[in-house]
Amino acid sequence: MTEASTRRRARGGGGAARRAERTAVKIETAKYIERNIPNFEVLNEEALEIIETNAETVLAEIGVNFVDNPAALERWREAGADVDGERVRLPRGLARELIKSAPSEFTQHARNPEKSVVIGGRNLVLAPVYGPPFVRDAQGGRRYATMDDFNKFVKLAYMSKWLHHSGGTVCEPTDIPVNKRHLDMLMAHMTLSDKPFMGSVTDPSRAQDSVEMCEILFGKEFVQNNTVMTSLTNINSPMTFDDVMMGSLEVYAANNQACIISPFIVGGAMAPVSVAGTLTQVLAEVMAGVAYSQIIRPGAPAIFGAFVSSIDMNSGAPTFGTPEASHVTYGAGQLARRLGLPFRSAGSFCGSKLPDAQAAYETANSLNMGLMSGVNFMLHSCGWLEGGLVADFEKFVMDADQLGVLHGLAKGVAYDENAQAMDAIREVGPGGHYLGCAHTQANFKEAFWKTDLLDYKPFETWEEEGARDTRTLASARVEHLLANYQQPQLDPEVNAALDAYVAEKKASMPDAFT
Amino acid sequence: MTEASTRRRARGGGGAARRAERTAVKIETAKYIERNIPNFEVLNEEALEIIETNAETVLAEIGVNFVDNPAALERWREAGADVDGERVRLPRGLARELIKSAPSEFTQHARNPEKSVVIGGRNLVLAPVYGPPFVRDAQGGRRYATMDDFNKFVKLAYMSKWLHHSGGTVCEPTDIPVNKRHLDMLMAHMTLSDKPFMGSVTDPSRAQDSVEMCEILFGKEFVQNNTVMTSLTNINSPMTFDDVMMGSLEVYAANNQACIISPFIVGGAMAPVSVAGTLTQVLAEVMAGVAYSQIIRPGAPAIFGAFVSSIDMNSGAPTFGTPEASHVTYGAGQLARRLGLPFRSAGSFCGSKLPDAQAAYETANSLNMGLMSGVNFMLHSCGWLEGGLVADFEKFVMDADQLGVLHGLAKGVAYDENAQAMDAIREVGPGGHYLGCAHTQANFKEAFWKTDLLDYKPFETWEEEGARDTRTLASARVEHLLANYQQPQLDPEVNAALDAYVAEKKASMPDAFT
Repeated sequence: MTEASTRRRARGGGGAARRAERTAVKIETAKYIERNIPNFEVLNEEALEIIETNAETVLAEIGVNFVDNPAALERWREAGADVDGERVRLPRGLARELIKSAPSEFTQHARNPEKSVVIGGRNLVLAPVYGPPFVRDAQGGRRYATMDDFNKFVKLAYMSKWLHHSGGTVCEPTDIPVNKRHLDMLMAHMTLSDKPFMGSVTDPSRAQDSVEMCEILFGKEFVQNNTVMTSLTNINSPMTFDDVMMGSLEVYAANNQACIISPFIVGGAMAPVSVAGTLTQVLAEVMAGVAYSQIIRPGAPAIFGAFVSSIDMNSGAPTFGTPEASHVTYGAGQLARRLGLPFRSAGSFCGSKLPDAQAAYETANSLNMGLMSGVNFMLHSCGWLEGGLVADFEKFVMDADQLGVLHGLAKGVAYDENAQAMDAIREVGPGGHYLGCAHTQANFKEAFWKTDLLDYKPFETWEEEGARDTRTLASARVEHLLANYQQPQLDPEVNAALDAYVAEKKASMPDAFT
Repeated sequence: MTEASTRRRARGGGGAARRAERTAVKIETAKYIERNIPNFEVLNEEALEIIETNAETVLAEIGVNFVDNPAALERWREAGADVDGERVRLPRGLARELIKSAPSEFTQHARNPEKSVVIGGRNLVLAPVYGPPFVRDAQGGRRYATMDDFNKFVKLAYMSKWLHHSGGTVCEPTDIPVNKRHLDMLMAHMTLSDKPFMGSVTDPSRAQDSVEMCEILFGKEFVQNNTVMTSLTNINSPMTFDDVMMGSLEVYAANNQACIISPFIVGGAMAPVSVAGTLTQVLAEVMAGVAYSQIIRPGAPAIFGAFVSSIDMNSGAPTFGTPEASHVTYGAGQLARRLGLPFRSAGSFCGSKLPDAQAAYETANSLNMGLMSGVNFMLHSCGWLEGGLVADFEKFVMDADQLGVLHGLAKGVAYDENAQAMDAIREVGPGGHYLGCAHTQANFKEAFWKTDLLDYKPFETWEEEGARDTRTLASARVEHLLANYQQPQLDPEVNAALDAYVAEKKASMPDAFT
């Protein structure tokens, strides 16, 4: 695995320097995952064909609504759809034909070129949690998120080896006016990290601001010719495309920036209670959305999204890490690959209120399923708590550590002569042990995934050190990382120009909190 | 899914009866899992052939040791092996030829015929943790296990819907003499539960006792003609077969009882640090062991076992839920299927000292991998803690709840007309919701896996109820289950005969604690 190492060395000589070196936090970012393992496929060819046929029926006979968006209706009419009020019906084959121009993979550039990512193909790009209005940590409990919290999460994501992407709204900075917080969020991603990031989708004008800030960061010409943002446009399932999300998509697609086009499904509420029915609706919705992006600009990058949770039929609460959510995700991955589109789904999903065993079971179920289902872009891959209402500091580093497991799994199994280890088996023989043999000495450093967090100590040592649970270990790691954070360099002129842009924008309008 | 429901009804009329009914503990046992999903395969044909060829080389050129077991050496010589001291070298093809008589699946009978299991094929049978000398719960902390603890675990396994098997040494009852505890353990499985169970392997004479007790429970003729125990015989990796384990295997195989023949691998210590090397050794070891069982009695059921953990190269501690352990297990499943043998591996493995997030991440990684790798018999599927040193009461019910997720995943995806849900999509249409539609009403009861443990309540309710974490919820569930346990019926004459057998055996020898 090649790694974009940006390890920082402590300066100064002698013992102090060596100590500093030992305790320094290494800032490494692993390359995005290139899978060397198969995808897991739950649907057979017959099931896939039935779902694809049914999705075309949904588009042709039932259709989708494009709400408060007369220009979109006009574009659809011109593209050959049957438009009736806000209802858009797509003749069989139209969406599939339009989608052909969407790329099956694309590069999203980071300002540090070593951290650019290729989204699609057999790759998996990992990004942190998105959207929680609350944060939680062991010390402070659950509270509304602030810009200070936001900055901390961006720093933690920058310092995580296994995160390839800085994400977007890692939490909602509720102390900043709604109409201005996108500016501060983008500044944080652009200046506190050098990983790729997402743009604002809460208003088309904010999508435009995102593009303009990227033009300052990357240069106008670079942005015209390259994709530098991947942003999240949700579909209001069932089958409703609102003007805010579609307005943002129109800005991004027109500028050749990537959009995740993502049904937001709580099974049994926003989609049928059955897996096949849900997949039919998801496919119809994504096809309509991606087709629309290609009407805006053929070739604009678009990702087949699927946010899927199941539901607790007693309480109506969304549930995560469940078999039904996994089935939908596995099936959606197959449908995305057949459409030739990159696939976004899964994440560190859980319903638990605390970063406890429930949270970890649910999360591990979702992360494993995400890897196996062929996800190309995994939003929410760490830090998600309480159904997405909370971004949890401890869970952020706990989940981020588990993302290393996904990297290891994706490597697959080597079987070259060294991996076959026949010399080791001969050397050790019956009744021996391998700890000191030549093959082990030559290979042990790279042989096993290493945790940065979990406890493997002998019981007695662990007890003497306070019998700490995972959350307690994670608290210490959060503190250690934030204390050792060092900002990546950015051209001061660029930084000043971004500052000026943000200041000017903020001054141009009164604060709004709704 | 057909279920052997033995639900107990509260007697009496009016409100009290209805209340009792509502709070009654339902004793249901789900049928063993019949997978309707594919297996996950990490090795390609070339890698499989290389590993198989190398395993034959190991057997032919390096060989295996049968220790302190002259009769075994004589049997091997007669079977065509090259015996040199205790070293047994198997000419290429000999093991594979001998293995042909082992069945690819077999029925293990329970005394309640509804709970008999078929081990092999696409099935997955779930059994609890095996072997810990310690137990832990939230109230009492970590302590040596006793017979009282053992009985409690057997009761909890009996009451778990998702466990198909009562297991064996669910914990070591350290308050009972070593040479007599197998008698009490078997009594517990036979009288406190009606699920299938395992026999003793700590001495050939105890294996014989296990067979004789089964003859009392099932009838002598039934035992002669049927498999009523599946027992665990470990291989001392690398490539050493000791006289205790092989002596027990000899007893079981001669009586047509099933043996799991299982290398015990901490990668990098008992096997090479590489996955392909470990698989080569595992395959060679299992082939030698299964071949030996077929020399004892052709046709005796034998299971391809693989206990696999990785290692923390800093401390030497075994590690669980890691990518390398998963790779070995996926590969071993492929090798077992190619040999035509049932496969045992995976479990609720973790290294954590507490049933916390670490434990749950590691466990969920292992459980999911176990399902996907085609395991047929999953020992340790619930209750495992601290690298197997501890059987944890809370984790037992936490893991057992997650086993329901495996049942759901294994069902696969239906795509009949009802599952396609086109009527529902038509009925609801864009902008509607599915909660009340006819399809949801008709299907919601069976649509989603339901937890018996996890918390999905609104935040405010959860906080009012004490902000309980998973372990706290699990403590309450353990207490509730044990308080509501009711012993399954057993013919009093059989029970008395078992009591007499145990009393006579115990009286026949002095206590031994080593």
